[in-house]
Amino acid sequence: MFDITKELQNTFYKEIPLSKSMKIEVKSFNEKVLELYAPLEVNINHMDTAFGGSLYNLAVLTGWGLVYTVLAENNLTGHIIIQDATIKYLKPIATDMYANCTIENEGAKDKFLKIYKKRGLSRIHLKVNVYDENKNLGVTFEGSYVVSK
Amino acid sequence: MFDITKELQNTFYKEIPLSKSMKIEVKSFNEKVLELYAPLEVNINHMDTAFGGSLYNLAVLTGWGLVYTVLAENNLTGHIIIQDATIKYLKPIATDMYANCTIENEGAKDKFLKIYKKRGLSRIHLKVNVYDENKNLGVTFEGSYVVSK
Repeated sequence: MFDITKELQNTFYKEIPLSKSMKIEVKSFNEKVLELYAPLEVNINHMDTAFGGSLYNLAVLTGWGLVYTVLAENNLTGHIIIQDATIKYLKPIATDMYANCTIENEGAKDKFLKIYKKRGLSRIHLKVNVYDENKNLGVTFEGSYVVSK
Repeated sequence: MFDITKELQNTFYKEIPLSKSMKIEVKSFNEKVLELYAPLEVNINHMDTAFGGSLYNLAVLTGWGLVYTVLAENNLTGHIIIQDATIKYLKPIATDMYANCTIENEGAKDKFLKIYKKRGLSRIHLKVNVYDENKNLGVTFEGSYVVSK
């Protein structure tokens, strides 16, 4: 069986060396929700909590990964890039960190795919949450991803 | 003579291990503008341009560093954390990258310092630009930093 989490993990480590420095792991994808993980140790800051930059990276890659899975499940490929993003730090994370992303709006996904198939260029807006190991919400992230052929 | 760029460099590498993985360097501080640098090599992505997460990290640390210098030149210390940020990717960066940050508004700096001295808690909003080695603007970043005693 095609294992999208393994493929995504390999893609991250091969294409984005910083994801390896961060020891990011693709935890699961249940056809709706993609979850990524990063350990606190290599992503720590001066306050002994998760570095804000690491939290951003984990979030931006979770969104990127979800776009990748959306393309894959529709037998499509493309270059995915982040266009803009907003991040809010609600609460420091003092443990390992977990990020998840899902398609909140099936209509938006269908529109994204329709435009991509027609024009070879499309955009999708995604939300990512990052939690500590006790499921406390630490970060909210929103980003727009552009996909081109 | 007290060398703020060296102190900031040491602080980054000591306190934030990911800044070392990214090989971030504090290039200069001329009492107004702080400049940080990161090489493309370890910060590359699947498109052979700078990874969006690395660009964010470089920007967020440049802003963080500027707050650090503002405190230092006023003989103050404090815990600096990023509260929220927005980043826009205008143009891919295919070379080493340079970020700079300055206080655009002396009045805002004075207000920030006045509140910090009075309450031990204050906030400052900063803009950071990231350029390629030919001075093409690749990224604009805005972030709010909170400082507490």
